[in-house]
Amino acid sequence: MQFDTMPNLLKKRVFLTPDRTAIYFNEETITFKELYEKSLQTAGKLQGLGVKKDQFVGVLLKNHLDTVVILFALQLLGVKAVILNNRLTTKELIWQVNDARAASLILDNDFEQIKKEVTIPAVTKDQLFAATSVTPEIQEEINLNDVCTVMYTSGTTGNPKGVLHTYGNHWWSAVGSALNLGYTDSDRWLCSVPLFHISGYSILMKSVIYGMPVILHENFDAKRAINDIKNKHVTIMSVVGTMLYRLVEALELEGCQLPKHFRCALLGGGPAPLPLLEACKAKEVPVFQSYGMTETASQIVTLAPEYSIIKLGSAGKPLFPSQLEIILEDGRMASPREAGEIVVKGPNVTSGYLYRPDATQVNFNDGWFHTGDIGYLDGEGFLYVLDRRSDLIISGGENIYPAEIESVLLAHPDVADAGVTGFDDETWGQVPAAFIVRKKNAHITEVELKQFCLENLAKYKVPKSFYFTDKLPRNASKKLLRRKLSELVQEGRIHK
Amino acid sequence: MQFDTMPNLLKKRVFLTPDRTAIYFNEETITFKELYEKSLQTAGKLQGLGVKKDQFVGVLLKNHLDTVVILFALQLLGVKAVILNNRLTTKELIWQVNDARAASLILDNDFEQIKKEVTIPAVTKDQLFAATSVTPEIQEEINLNDVCTVMYTSGTTGNPKGVLHTYGNHWWSAVGSALNLGYTDSDRWLCSVPLFHISGYSILMKSVIYGMPVILHENFDAKRAINDIKNKHVTIMSVVGTMLYRLVEALELEGCQLPKHFRCALLGGGPAPLPLLEACKAKEVPVFQSYGMTETASQIVTLAPEYSIIKLGSAGKPLFPSQLEIILEDGRMASPREAGEIVVKGPNVTSGYLYRPDATQVNFNDGWFHTGDIGYLDGEGFLYVLDRRSDLIISGGENIYPAEIESVLLAHPDVADAGVTGFDDETWGQVPAAFIVRKKNAHITEVELKQFCLENLAKYKVPKSFYFTDKLPRNASKKLLRRKLSELVQEGRIHK
Repeated sequence: MQFDTMPNLLKKRVFLTPDRTAIYFNEETITFKELYEKSLQTAGKLQGLGVKKDQFVGVLLKNHLDTVVILFALQLLGVKAVILNNRLTTKELIWQVNDARAASLILDNDFEQIKKEVTIPAVTKDQLFAATSVTPEIQEEINLNDVCTVMYTSGTTGNPKGVLHTYGNHWWSAVGSALNLGYTDSDRWLCSVPLFHISGYSILMKSVIYGMPVILHENFDAKRAINDIKNKHVTIMSVVGTMLYRLVEALELEGCQLPKHFRCALLGGGPAPLPLLEACKAKEVPVFQSYGMTETASQIVTLAPEYSIIKLGSAGKPLFPSQLEIILEDGRMASPREAGEIVVKGPNVTSGYLYRPDATQVNFNDGWFHTGDIGYLDGEGFLYVLDRRSDLIISGGENIYPAEIESVLLAHPDVADAGVTGFDDETWGQVPAAFIVRKKNAHITEVELKQFCLENLAKYKVPKSFYFTDKLPRNASKKLLRRKLSELVQEGRIHK
Repeated sequence: MQFDTMPNLLKKRVFLTPDRTAIYFNEETITFKELYEKSLQTAGKLQGLGVKKDQFVGVLLKNHLDTVVILFALQLLGVKAVILNNRLTTKELIWQVNDARAASLILDNDFEQIKKEVTIPAVTKDQLFAATSVTPEIQEEINLNDVCTVMYTSGTTGNPKGVLHTYGNHWWSAVGSALNLGYTDSDRWLCSVPLFHISGYSILMKSVIYGMPVILHENFDAKRAINDIKNKHVTIMSVVGTMLYRLVEALELEGCQLPKHFRCALLGGGPAPLPLLEACKAKEVPVFQSYGMTETASQIVTLAPEYSIIKLGSAGKPLFPSQLEIILEDGRMASPREAGEIVVKGPNVTSGYLYRPDATQVNFNDGWFHTGDIGYLDGEGFLYVLDRRSDLIISGGENIYPAEIESVLLAHPDVADAGVTGFDDETWGQVPAAFIVRKKNAHITEVELKQFCLENLAKYKVPKSFYFTDKLPRNASKKLLRRKLSELVQEGRIHK
């Protein structure tokens, strides 16, 4: 007998532990019972407005307690939430809403002007909460194969694609993480990453599945994070490299350390530079490197606790239910330490892209998902992520991985941030170019940086040109957007 | 996309954390890597002896490190293990081996004489370990719908039935338990229940799925259990009522308490009498009542930590992925506090009985499994198990639940153990009869016990006759065998 149904997640959680705290948001705390009641009422209002099971509904909402309520109201109704990135331009938003064939749109009050731009029914959250409630038709059971959410991937080439997440994808992601990181009823997870990204949404799913309180911040603020870690007993926090960098900086500034109960900074969003990891080690910040993407419903590879120090820089091994292989261009499996494409399989991996059988077919092969990312396994099977394939620079037949060069640049004491991308070159096909943010009061020059690179990298990897700027283009989850680097130069917005 | 494959469990575990301890057995400790290597070698020997994937193979083995190795060797080969109760008579064993159409049989050395009685190939474990090893064909992936084990239920009526456990049943059981009890890498589980029961086998599955050390005892000894809880840092232990009773007694005798790191005595094997739970509370033994059976691959209902005291006597609520209902004779759902049949659903519930479509059909209805057990839910949905339906005494149209009467009898200071069953009666159809083990040096009489019952029970529930004996018939997991009580009288082996 095939198993594919389960009780409605929030409803089951509220039945099991109604009085546990679900969310801390600013001065508010809310139990699972209260969260359920608010979500149920909101489900009634949504239904009153014409929202129905199996529809795709766009949501453009900031990190807020109300957002949590609305997201669970949609789950209660069996509506598929198309979760939109708050930083998109109106044009991009409309494109995604149309692509998903969304029946309606729910907006944060600040985005009210978008209502005029779309042709489908749209309400702000204030309008939603003011609507009349009817008795909602609740999904008492969920099917693990049903789509729960759609999130568009940034798409470094071509149009964005809507990644389908089933309830099963979210469930297995939460379970795989619990088996690796462990879980006890004293755990509390700090969410200062966006709820519209899988990194944030997956924390909400863990909250209901584990029965775990989440401390929700509107955005990341290092001082506030440290404060809540201490006072609200945060044990786990999801971070990307830049957040971790600012966290360590703030700890140094205050001359303090994180309390002992803080057991895990779960680091995602791309390969972390070694100097950052070493700074964390010095400050005794327990970093768990991980690897994942929207298509894997958050982390799929994480470093187990006992290896967090001795395998510093590795993303670890695939979570229990998942598998990973490194595949060479010719389709062969790579040998240890041989770089190739990272290919993954598991119950947390998306079943494909919304209305894109072509893209789905290209990326899947016999249940294995081709990530397009480059990495290698060491002799023991630990994954080292080198780069995104789309960012790969091929120069004179040699492969160059931007992250490797960035890691070197970031190790220079005068460099605050660094990005590397490929520029077209008549002789070599492509050559690397570096974009540098200097530290305050630092005056490092191109000549000095080139010399520093020559000391640390094979000659062909040394950037041919250096650009100095105040800030690098990063998306909402602080991931470096390398293709934007060259655009800045092309648009004349940055000069050598 | 339907998800139903996963990496081979032991192989994945050894890949993730090879150097963690898997098993402590007497003076031996064994890491997951060593366990894998031994199991792999044993798989090669089994294959050399002709054991093949998808065969049913009988195993009659005691609690021992070798048994763990053999059970995982069978998993590596994709062989379905028919796990036989060590206390069966040879006749019963042969019946089960034949019923399962087992291709061969693996025996503990002590059971060698059984080889002569069976018509299928049989080897002792010494013979197996001395065999020549070939390169085994290992199942790199498991299918969650494939059968992993078969265990025969004691079957209070009719012939025993082989309960099918898929890999998925075991997996979800382990995950459901982790989500409820929590899991950290400092957890260690003491297994002094039989590995041939689901209570013991499920601990092995948790070991590989969590990466958790198991302390394995040949059998339960209260003093040894307390010693290992202290010195081997045991945090969780599976117990049935009589074990817990002896544990508390031993603690009282030694005038000590369990250390703080011991966080859970997981109590299964039937409703626990209130006096026992109260004694545990007094001794600060953290008891988590649970409810489950072979058909549910161990616990399906467990009391969450925060309710262990205020809902003393309840088995709790169904684990996250599972559901439970109380159904009345006429098929209606029971109201709160109304007793009826316990009906369950979930991914840990067996898909049915081996070669018994009839029995499977009788017990299943639209994915719901009819347990035959009687219980009720309180207003908040906490389950209280009253009794096994097959033990139900119907007297003058009134339902009488033996466990309720036993609970009263056990509360008497002179009573060490008590069992109640129904005797045929011309007037009332059935009447309850009580079987009593007096405490050492106690001289309580039938008249005194009747008076005590009258003070605590409705008159129709008071046993009509009392039998005094040294020992009550219990199975290997210490569950009272009520039908054996009346047999003792019929056979003239016990008198009033």
